[in-house]
Amino acid sequence: MKKHNFSAGPSILPQEVLLKASHAVMDFNNEGLSLLEISHRSKAFVDVMENARALVLELLGLEGKGYKALFLQGGASTQFLMVAMNLLEKRAGYLNTGTWSKKAIKEAKMLDDIYEVASSESANFNYIPKGYDIPEDYDYFHCTSNNTIFGTQIKEFPNSPIPMVCDMSSDIFSRVLDFSKFDLIYAGAQKNMGPAGTTLVVIKEDILGKVSRKIPSIMDYKLHISNGSMYNTPPVFAVYTSMLTLEWIKSLGGIAAVEKLNEKKANVMYSEIDLNPLFKGFATKEDRSIMNATFTLENENLKETFETMLKEAGISGLNGHRSVGGYRASMYNALPIESVKTLVEVMSELESKA
Amino acid sequence: MKKHNFSAGPSILPQEVLLKASHAVMDFNNEGLSLLEISHRSKAFVDVMENARALVLELLGLEGKGYKALFLQGGASTQFLMVAMNLLEKRAGYLNTGTWSKKAIKEAKMLDDIYEVASSESANFNYIPKGYDIPEDYDYFHCTSNNTIFGTQIKEFPNSPIPMVCDMSSDIFSRVLDFSKFDLIYAGAQKNMGPAGTTLVVIKEDILGKVSRKIPSIMDYKLHISNGSMYNTPPVFAVYTSMLTLEWIKSLGGIAAVEKLNEKKANVMYSEIDLNPLFKGFATKEDRSIMNATFTLENENLKETFETMLKEAGISGLNGHRSVGGYRASMYNALPIESVKTLVEVMSELESKA
Ligand SMILES: Cc1ncc(COP(=O)(O)O)c(C=O)c1O
Ligand SMILES: Cc1ncc(COP(=O)(O)O)c(C=O)c1O
Ligand SMILES: [Mg+2]
Ligand SMILES: [Mg+2]
Ligand SMILES: [Mg+2]
Ligand SMILES: [Mg+2]
Repeated sequence: MKKHNFSAGPSILPQEVLLKASHAVMDFNNEGLSLLEISHRSKAFVDVMENARALVLELLGLEGKGYKALFLQGGASTQFLMVAMNLLEKRAGYLNTGTWSKKAIKEAKMLDDIYEVASSESANFNYIPKGYDIPEDYDYFHCTSNNTIFGTQIKEFPNSPIPMVCDMSSDIFSRVLDFSKFDLIYAGAQKNMGPAGTTLVVIKEDILGKVSRKIPSIMDYKLHISNGSMYNTPPVFAVYTSMLTLEWIKSLGGIAAVEKLNEKKANVMYSEIDLNPLFKGFATKEDRSIMNATFTLENENLKETFETMLKEAGISGLNGHRSVGGYRASMYNALPIESVKTLVEVMSELESKA
Repeated sequence: MKKHNFSAGPSILPQEVLLKASHAVMDFNNEGLSLLEISHRSKAFVDVMENARALVLELLGLEGKGYKALFLQGGASTQFLMVAMNLLEKRAGYLNTGTWSKKAIKEAKMLDDIYEVASSESANFNYIPKGYDIPEDYDYFHCTSNNTIFGTQIKEFPNSPIPMVCDMSSDIFSRVLDFSKFDLIYAGAQKNMGPAGTTLVVIKEDILGKVSRKIPSIMDYKLHISNGSMYNTPPVFAVYTSMLTLEWIKSLGGIAAVEKLNEKKANVMYSEIDLNPLFKGFATKEDRSIMNATFTLENENLKETFETMLKEAGISGLNGHRSVGGYRASMYNALPIESVKTLVEVMSELESKA
């Protein structure tokens, strides 16, 4: 039986994407070779890469606006460093909204001065700070759109007077935004885009080339751009599977259509959390993530019963991160609303039992 | 029809590995989830990672000798930088045997002083320099065991008085060596180990921690080791498929058994190149690679006929790299001897026609 997969990442992918990816491992394009065995310089794969890059800009509404899309390796964690290497000359401003923001700050600090424009750390990151200033003379401003661990999400982005960089690892392609407000967006694939193993970077080209440090080749966005995202061997399978997911999003009607489904799922989920007296939401209501709902079970004695019921219902990946405890329901694009309904049923069944 | 795949990388993998990998994309371990959808922190995947790391040390004969195996992202090209970041304090010696050695040198030079202990560049890298000195007071010595593009291979490694680092991207697991002579070995997976998207690094732990620079987290071997090769989300699919290939090597009887098959294939290939008057080998005989045979067709007029015949025989991936021209037959572990025999038949058929 296929499980109800609430895993925070790597996480659920559309069934049709899995089918096509599985097939390509045996025979790609009916060419008598596996996708894993072909040269990345072959026309067949170059087409995949170009199609994937173009779909990203199309879905984000960034075509013809000076942006380039790259599929790199190393995870979002590598971007914590690359962003600073490519953009940090003197000082940058970071919004600290959780574990991942903190790691981004830590990496950038190794290169130069970092200023936290605001932080919600003293409240264990259960809200998104607002009303902070972004100094005009800094190199860039960095924020995390969705805090996977804490279940908070930025709803209104600031009007940044300097280039705005955003880690969208856990909510890319999940909601409509004016993406042209951002100068650099990055996201590990393993939530809304594909398997672990590739990282999407979308860059407004004109922000590059302004720092004085020598940038190592493999860390240099410009070099990756001039090589069509193939400076070295790309992670072929992860890029192909991401392309399939991007095609799936397009076939559903693009990000706007996907967002509607995501909002429905989040509504069902948060209604239950709020109405059911056994559960309590972790994040401040106005900052709740539509991707990751974090909540706790108030009565510890019911834990075992609840977890047995989850298991029996085929629900997996619901454990909260240790920094928050409790539960986390990750509801990425590919999660069907039926899975959320199943979870909610279990929660209300627990209430009727208790 | 399955093709005869001589691609230089990404390249041929064992059919049974492809079958298992393809199945895991639909359903992993019969658990009702795809391999792509499970948490990398799940027991199922942690077991995969640990098994893969252990198999590496077992196959290389490095168990209990102070080595650790890591599966990282970023390709061998990222190792060009990471090696220098982790080991280069003042000066290092590099053997320059081709395009990849040069790139390794270029990256390391960004950090500090690099000395070429020897180079075969003036002969377009058609041989391996010998009899050079490795200065005792340098931080490390770096070499490339197999030059994928030029088809040369180091047969005898020097007795290095300083830590020896080796890029084995294109001949790892293909022949028996005293691997304990090396202090750091790295290899992109996409030749003899798996799909593109992960890089194997094998490190003797006691060479780490000796440089004064601050190493960014994602570049720090020590941090990757202390996190069991999961400092951040690993490339799950590429690691799993690599593990399957390692199991396949073990099932054949380990590297010694694989080496015998590789030697047979290389003998068949080079005999034809030498005996057939239409073809000429590129590399100096004593330095010929058993992985990549580079050769040219002497009579340009036969080019079209030859390439039509190759196509008809289902032979793919034989084009030489532009820095050498002609042809390159990559004969990695998973290439059956039947493929080499088919190629050799086409070559001798061409001779009888000419
Ligand atoms: C918001 C966010 N940023 C960064 C990361 C780190 O990504 P990676 O493991 O690909 O380095 C994660 C991982 O969950 C994340 O959720
Ligand atoms: C010997 C050698 N080193 C390094 C590389 C670069 O590897 P990657 O593309 O994974 O960075 C290659 C690629 O073919 C290679 O053959
Ligand atoms: Mg977080
Ligand atoms: Mg409640
Ligand atoms: Mg080479
Ligand atoms: Mg000859």
